[in-house]
Amino acid sequence: MINIVIIGSGNVASHLIKAFAKSEVVEVIQVFSRKNNFLSDFLPSEKITNIFSNIKEADLYILAVSDSAIEEVSKQLLFKNKLVVHTSGAVNLDAISNSNRRGVFYPLQTFSKNKEVNFQEIPICIEAENEEDIRVLHLVAKSISQKVYDVDSNQRKALHVSAVFVNNFTNYMYQIGETICSENNIDFQIVQPLIIETVNKINTLSPKEAQTGPAKRGDTNTINNHLEFLRDSNFKEIYKLLTKSIIDDGKKL
Amino acid sequence: MINIVIIGSGNVASHLIKAFAKSEVVEVIQVFSRKNNFLSDFLPSEKITNIFSNIKEADLYILAVSDSAIEEVSKQLLFKNKLVVHTSGAVNLDAISNSNRRGVFYPLQTFSKNKEVNFQEIPICIEAENEEDIRVLHLVAKSISQKVYDVDSNQRKALHVSAVFVNNFTNYMYQIGETICSENNIDFQIVQPLIIETVNKINTLSPKEAQTGPAKRGDTNTINNHLEFLRDSNFKEIYKLLTKSIIDDGKKL
Repeated sequence: MINIVIIGSGNVASHLIKAFAKSEVVEVIQVFSRKNNFLSDFLPSEKITNIFSNIKEADLYILAVSDSAIEEVSKQLLFKNKLVVHTSGAVNLDAISNSNRRGVFYPLQTFSKNKEVNFQEIPICIEAENEEDIRVLHLVAKSISQKVYDVDSNQRKALHVSAVFVNNFTNYMYQIGETICSENNIDFQIVQPLIIETVNKINTLSPKEAQTGPAKRGDTNTINNHLEFLRDSNFKEIYKLLTKSIIDDGKKL
Repeated sequence: MINIVIIGSGNVASHLIKAFAKSEVVEVIQVFSRKNNFLSDFLPSEKITNIFSNIKEADLYILAVSDSAIEEVSKQLLFKNKLVVHTSGAVNLDAISNSNRRGVFYPLQTFSKNKEVNFQEIPICIEAENEEDIRVLHLVAKSISQKVYDVDSNQRKALHVSAVFVNNFTNYMYQIGETICSENNIDFQIVQPLIIETVNKINTLSPKEAQTGPAKRGDTNTINNHLEFLRDSNFKEIYKLLTKSIIDDGKKL
């Protein structure tokens, strides 16, 4: 058994705790949480602590805290030369205090409190400073996911930026679409099959090959009609900029 | 049997021809195509014509031509007082010559030549000028799709703009994500589960509730790191504008 202590109680922490509960290789022996909140719903109280000096000896410490807290929390750990990893896509490995062996255990997914996820399908991006630590992180990651990747700090940053586009910004496109529909008394469900087909297409075509629509066709008539239709000034600017960028991109061929 | 003539041989026309081939209510008795192209692969040659005066008597004529050709082609039809519909999300019903009864038969989907679609799942938006024509269009639409909606011209325009955001622009977000990955030697497959989860989430949460990420959190540190990371000037502008808009939107609550 690989013994783990998880530090944190946010979305990532609680999804990891639930995922490891099913693992036969890994045991979460303790969770550190400053807020004694909902953790007690699915953990026995003797496994929860809010005192740094009570943190147990373990093979791996996972800092599942907010990006800005990683550095500070890692400095408050009282032990030395243990494997300590964070779970962030955006933060460098060396944000972790160098009194311990440092690593990254980044699950590339969007976690919401009220939405279950299947961890088996979530890519976990691993980084550490020596072979043995990498091996341990692989074992731990593979115990909950089929998709484990070695990703260095620069690649992880690229992945994180890419994730902002394909997740946050895509979701914002959905939000704009929904706003336009609801302002015109249209059920947003009507465009759901289109949303699903948009995703399905890129299984067989590259996004560039899959592109259709007025910008791709250079259909200025429709583009102008749409701009006239849009009232919200941000939506209008977004429409203009993305249309321009798709057109510019077509010229790059 | 409802007899149909399809005018056009592009993506929408050929997908419609294939869908109606399975219908027991509708028969495509003829296709008009100026280019005598691939249609002969799946239609007997006596069903294809490129001469307006040879167009047969039918219950419904579907103009599956480009937006800019609708008006001109509709004027070249030699018959009068027949039901003639176009398939465009962007064009008003009255673009069709008023020598015939006019309507719209708009399948809200993205069609690519090399990608089969399941028409049963494609919403078809119907509009016509009288009850009887609406009834016929419903019968025809329901023979190939489970999802048939009455949508007026203004709502159809809203749907079309919405579709540009959730399809064209979302697909462009994928393209940017792929570009960033490939520039950093990362397999774009790593972000696929994130793309799928982004879609799945909005089955249970509204896009606004589902939003996560640095813009939503107001995490200026990560936002600035990402902007520094991005080299392409369009990508940088898009990142800035969407981030600003998500932040503005959060304030609207």
